[in-house]
Amino acid sequence: MRQDKTRQLLVVVGLVAVIAGFVIGILIGALAIDNSEPENAAVAAALQDGDASISDKLINEIDGKNIKEFLRYFTSEPHLAGTRMDLVQAEYVRDKWLEQGLDYADVVPYKLLLSYPQGKENRVEYLNSGGDVEFESAREEAILDESQRRDDIVPPFNAYSGAGTEQGDLVFANYATVEDFNHLEREKGINLTDKIIIAKYGRIFRGDKAFFAMGVGAKGLILYSDPADVAPEGYPDKTYPDGIFLPGSGVQRGSLYKDMMDPLTPGYPATDYAYRIDESEANLPSIPVHPIGYDDARKFLSRMAGDEVKEGWKGQLNITYKYGPGFSNPQEKARLVITTQNTLATAYNVIGGITGAVEPDRYAMLGNHRDAWVFGALDPNSGTAIMMEVSRAYGKLVKGGWRPRRSVVFCSWGAEEYGIIGSNEYVEEFSKSLAARAVVYLNLDTSVTGDYRIRASSSPHLYKAVYEATKKVTDPNKNADGKSQSVYDNWYAKSSKTADDAPTVGDLGSGSDYAPFMQRIGVSSVDMTYYHQYAGFPMYHSVYETFHLMSTYYDPEFVVHATVGRVQVELLRSFADSLVLPMDCRDYAKRISAMFQSFKASNEGTLGAEDISLDVLENAIQNMTAGADYLQTTIDGLRDRKDPMAYRTVNDVLTGFERVFIDPLGLPDRPMVRHVIFAPSSKNMYASSGFPGLTDALFEIELVDPEEKVARWNQVRHEVARLTHVIESAAAYLDHFLMTLHRGKHGS
Amino acid sequence: MRQDKTRQLLVVVGLVAVIAGFVIGILIGALAIDNSEPENAAVAAALQDGDASISDKLINEIDGKNIKEFLRYFTSEPHLAGTRMDLVQAEYVRDKWLEQGLDYADVVPYKLLLSYPQGKENRVEYLNSGGDVEFESAREEAILDESQRRDDIVPPFNAYSGAGTEQGDLVFANYATVEDFNHLEREKGINLTDKIIIAKYGRIFRGDKAFFAMGVGAKGLILYSDPADVAPEGYPDKTYPDGIFLPGSGVQRGSLYKDMMDPLTPGYPATDYAYRIDESEANLPSIPVHPIGYDDARKFLSRMAGDEVKEGWKGQLNITYKYGPGFSNPQEKARLVITTQNTLATAYNVIGGITGAVEPDRYAMLGNHRDAWVFGALDPNSGTAIMMEVSRAYGKLVKGGWRPRRSVVFCSWGAEEYGIIGSNEYVEEFSKSLAARAVVYLNLDTSVTGDYRIRASSSPHLYKAVYEATKKVTDPNKNADGKSQSVYDNWYAKSSKTADDAPTVGDLGSGSDYAPFMQRIGVSSVDMTYYHQYAGFPMYHSVYETFHLMSTYYDPEFVVHATVGRVQVELLRSFADSLVLPMDCRDYAKRISAMFQSFKASNEGTLGAEDISLDVLENAIQNMTAGADYLQTTIDGLRDRKDPMAYRTVNDVLTGFERVFIDPLGLPDRPMVRHVIFAPSSKNMYASSGFPGLTDALFEIELVDPEEKVARWNQVRHEVARLTHVIESAAAYLDHFLMTLHRGKHGS
Repeated sequence: MRQDKTRQLLVVVGLVAVIAGFVIGILIGALAIDNSEPENAAVAAALQDGDASISDKLINEIDGKNIKEFLRYFTSEPHLAGTRMDLVQAEYVRDKWLEQGLDYADVVPYKLLLSYPQGKENRVEYLNSGGDVEFESAREEAILDESQRRDDIVPPFNAYSGAGTEQGDLVFANYATVEDFNHLEREKGINLTDKIIIAKYGRIFRGDKAFFAMGVGAKGLILYSDPADVAPEGYPDKTYPDGIFLPGSGVQRGSLYKDMMDPLTPGYPATDYAYRIDESEANLPSIPVHPIGYDDARKFLSRMAGDEVKEGWKGQLNITYKYGPGFSNPQEKARLVITTQNTLATAYNVIGGITGAVEPDRYAMLGNHRDAWVFGALDPNSGTAIMMEVSRAYGKLVKGGWRPRRSVVFCSWGAEEYGIIGSNEYVEEFSKSLAARAVVYLNLDTSVTGDYRIRASSSPHLYKAVYEATKKVTDPNKNADGKSQSVYDNWYAKSSKTADDAPTVGDLGSGSDYAPFMQRIGVSSVDMTYYHQYAGFPMYHSVYETFHLMSTYYDPEFVVHATVGRVQVELLRSFADSLVLPMDCRDYAKRISAMFQSFKASNEGTLGAEDISLDVLENAIQNMTAGADYLQTTIDGLRDRKDPMAYRTVNDVLTGFERVFIDPLGLPDRPMVRHVIFAPSSKNMYASSGFPGLTDALFEIELVDPEEKVARWNQVRHEVARLTHVIESAAAYLDHFLMTLHRGKHGS
Repeated sequence: MRQDKTRQLLVVVGLVAVIAGFVIGILIGALAIDNSEPENAAVAAALQDGDASISDKLINEIDGKNIKEFLRYFTSEPHLAGTRMDLVQAEYVRDKWLEQGLDYADVVPYKLLLSYPQGKENRVEYLNSGGDVEFESAREEAILDESQRRDDIVPPFNAYSGAGTEQGDLVFANYATVEDFNHLEREKGINLTDKIIIAKYGRIFRGDKAFFAMGVGAKGLILYSDPADVAPEGYPDKTYPDGIFLPGSGVQRGSLYKDMMDPLTPGYPATDYAYRIDESEANLPSIPVHPIGYDDARKFLSRMAGDEVKEGWKGQLNITYKYGPGFSNPQEKARLVITTQNTLATAYNVIGGITGAVEPDRYAMLGNHRDAWVFGALDPNSGTAIMMEVSRAYGKLVKGGWRPRRSVVFCSWGAEEYGIIGSNEYVEEFSKSLAARAVVYLNLDTSVTGDYRIRASSSPHLYKAVYEATKKVTDPNKNADGKSQSVYDNWYAKSSKTADDAPTVGDLGSGSDYAPFMQRIGVSSVDMTYYHQYAGFPMYHSVYETFHLMSTYYDPEFVVHATVGRVQVELLRSFADSLVLPMDCRDYAKRISAMFQSFKASNEGTLGAEDISLDVLENAIQNMTAGADYLQTTIDGLRDRKDPMAYRTVNDVLTGFERVFIDPLGLPDRPMVRHVIFAPSSKNMYASSGFPGLTDALFEIELVDPEEKVARWNQVRHEVARLTHVIESAAAYLDHFLMTLHRGKHGS
């Protein structure tokens, strides 16, 4: 027994010891592997999807009160590009970013050809029959509150206007679009040579108006904002300072430059060492152009001769709108006096960022311009104030020990108002790094112009991310049942729908800093605004874009700002921190397919008459669609494969997909605009043109002379082939294993 | 005692059990982690460097006997681009690759503007004073062995020659270089307008000769190979079929086209759906050009009038070389009769590959053209035969279960002889996939022209890999002590040395299929030949480039071929299978720095007189050098970090580095040549020009007229700024964490 007991004891002790040793061994064995193979931390991080709680933390961090204070700072003084305050605010942004906890922040200067009025000389004069000045347009806007009582406010002007004095007969050209000039010349038979055009602001980019006016032979252009657009009848709002509508002395400033880059350094960054072409070689307007308020416009328009304009041309000035030419007394003339000068000046970008923990060489970017014509409370400071709060939220989490998977980059651009210049020069200077590494560019600009709903324009590649982010954020508007709802739901309720029953997202034209990212180097971009139900943005580029305007009428509690900030902070996170990027090539294929079907329906007959078939293009789109499905299958297959390289691979394909649409040879006559699917319309830079090369080649093709018609139809053939090539190239690109890099085997 | 013994026993048993349990536990714990986390296989593969034994297996697999049989096949029939045999051999390559075990292989056709003589009409006639033909050049080369007795041999011609009949006075222009024409016009005062130029082949690309002749106003060009170059006195070799020297009836065929792409589809692939410009818009020679043998050339040259040529111009025809113009009897004339026609024809690439195990979206590429003017035993079949053996070795290992880390792609190009067309169209069609994913392009072409030593031209980015691969392979030549040595050692012993005491590697000009990879999209490339001590390549493009020539005189045992094959199989493996790519940006920085110092020494004075400083450019090169050092520090730091994403990151930086030198706007007047550091010389397409934009702008700048001189100096300023920008951009690119994407902080 004793032996037995001893044996039993031995067995028990042995077993316990074996088990204990076993357990300890397992633990140590497991831990030992963790400790002895340091790859596990890196590998685990590489395989880890973004922490969902981070999303909530970032969203909850955004505070409207902070945004309000940022807005107060940025609207405290005028900060026109190239002025002293441009640098002061740039340094503020840099210092603030460093204080917020970003890893780095720097001011990046460029030496640009900018344009400034000389004193307060610019004006439009009304000359009596003796040639004397009977009256002239106001040299500056009326002082309607104390904020305007200062001497550093740039008077109303159009940047890059030709300088000089031109006198002549006015012709009213409605909005000065191609159609408007066609109406004047073809239907009304009015000779526009050497006339001075007077036209409304709106509908298209003002620079296009200037170049169209030059095209018809006019020798000057006067622009004004009609009350129909900026203070329309029938709405409850009043004019500033009592409301958001534009008063009669308010004037929209703005640039006339169309090429979206420093005019003297096309294709290359405007550094100190840059080669600068002669100003005469730059594509600048040659005629004087000047903007006036509608109180002044009324005085000129009410005296005009000629037929009364047709219905769609009338504004709300309580006058009889007439075409001209000239005044009812033909001896009386209008005279434009412009002394604006172009000059080299330094403008400033600020770039700051957080280095990613796992893929520091992939950049999720968020940017906005900082320069404003005067105070810029809406344009661009609503966006800048939001960006500063977004960066603060990121900085706070980074200080707390978190770090996103990819790098985050914040960009405060200079000289956007002059022609999207600061961002363009940056993209030119760092195009190789950005084309290789930028995952997305999110643009802010004027982020709040009302409290109705969100509105987005983006590459189809980002639809999914935009929908997902807006679903995560609560909207200030309650739903029809008075219940709280998401930004997405409010948007959905008030928007037209896509074929997939989602709110419509617009295409990207130009008009803000996404243009160089999207159209020069193919970085997928999105632009978003929370906007007004009916008012548009009446105070746009006037001196009355003040903190008072925003904080009194638009968003007193800054809840709309905070909402946009929450959408942006989450949208940025979804690109910076997700294991698989929230992009979907199938959405791109669908959008292109829809555009194609619409194009085909409108043009197939005309093209067929010229023996031009769209079959190859349609086939290419089908191949690309198959490629997009194939990629998605690959991505779906990753869920069970813990393979860090495979994730990187599909993310590289997703990121690079937008690049496929960039043709280094550029669009016809626009070598620096390179996106063959979406580009600014050549007839209106603000708008997007789908298949821009094709659309331009077909524009009014029936009206051109026979020789040009032959060339134009050849251009159409060329554009169909080019689109087919680019879209086939996209199809091949989607199959990243090269099994089908050669033709004809997509998706196998 | 008993108790004690029991206790001792318990302790011992317990300890043993604990230890046993512990050990088992550790093992199970460790194994459990291996089994329960499926990422480990993928992760381990991602972190695994290439297996060194694979290198030996691949090298040992290469067998000269196989290469000989491949060469026998490819030289069995003429296989000019666009002919029936072009397709037959393409399909052979495809089928062979599939049989060898590649994952895929496909024939990829393009519809190209090619050029063919019509029958045997092309000739140069000697007209007597009565205008009758006294004699004419041979319509075809002499039959010197039975292989030439067939009717599908294209007679000597220059592709894309202008068609027509031109009669006039001959002027002898030596090698028809810029300097040669300058000598004739400026020093000899000979008016070249409407003359027919007769010139030697050699020194520069024949297409440049044709365009220079057009530039001086000549109306025709006759080319011949002088015995001094192809059958020089004083060497032991005999002419074919008794040796490697060119017999008197042998003629070099060849293209005159300079733009390296399908002439009708510039910038876009020559697919069926492509838009084709009118032939009149293509950049083709407008004058008739024809090549003749030296037996014929002697007849024309010996009858010429004028002064005897200066010393450097004389050949070895045993005549008195005279400048002309005309014959000693001025009534006698030369007449060129050319009926060559340009026509659309289909040529074929073949693409085959092996999909990588870890990074299938990264491609290591090896290629060679397949088309030949006739049999092409050296050009290009020595390379193709080697490539087929290299692919066989890879296929065999893949069949055995191995798979490289990255994908391997083999390319058999069509229509290279016409102007590097097949590879260019492929690069155009798939530029987006290739620019995103191609790691390297290794080019073969004429791989064996002798048994003296290896000679390489490459991007500086590949020096390291070339040195490493050549060190691993045994050379057929023994060293001075009669001992076996490596390819590198034999090369080192017979070559000039770099500043780092390594054998000199040349820069890449054009003349083979690396051009579109290197100069259009920035894929680092290398070109390699095992060459002859003194003979050059006398039979180049003649009918006598036969299997007999190679197997009798050049490489009877195919040991040289096997040596080149071993170097290529290892070089390819080093890119396909290494954990860190064998590229070194420091070598690039050094090469650019050396080129810059040499440029500065030659030009600083001239530039300084025009107030052009090179300081900004020098500073940029220093920044890039610092960036290269920084990247290397990052790479060195990886050895202790088992982080798969970090390896991918540095490999992406290494791969993308060559892309940084690609300017999408292209070089001045050469929009499709985009590499700003190395490009074909605009005065000799075969040669490389360093800083080509700058070099061209400065070319003979003192000789141009005053107005052009101003424009040229502005161009020089522009080029200095552009180079500075591109090199600064390279510096920024090297710091992949964006900490210094903005200016001024490289390497921090």
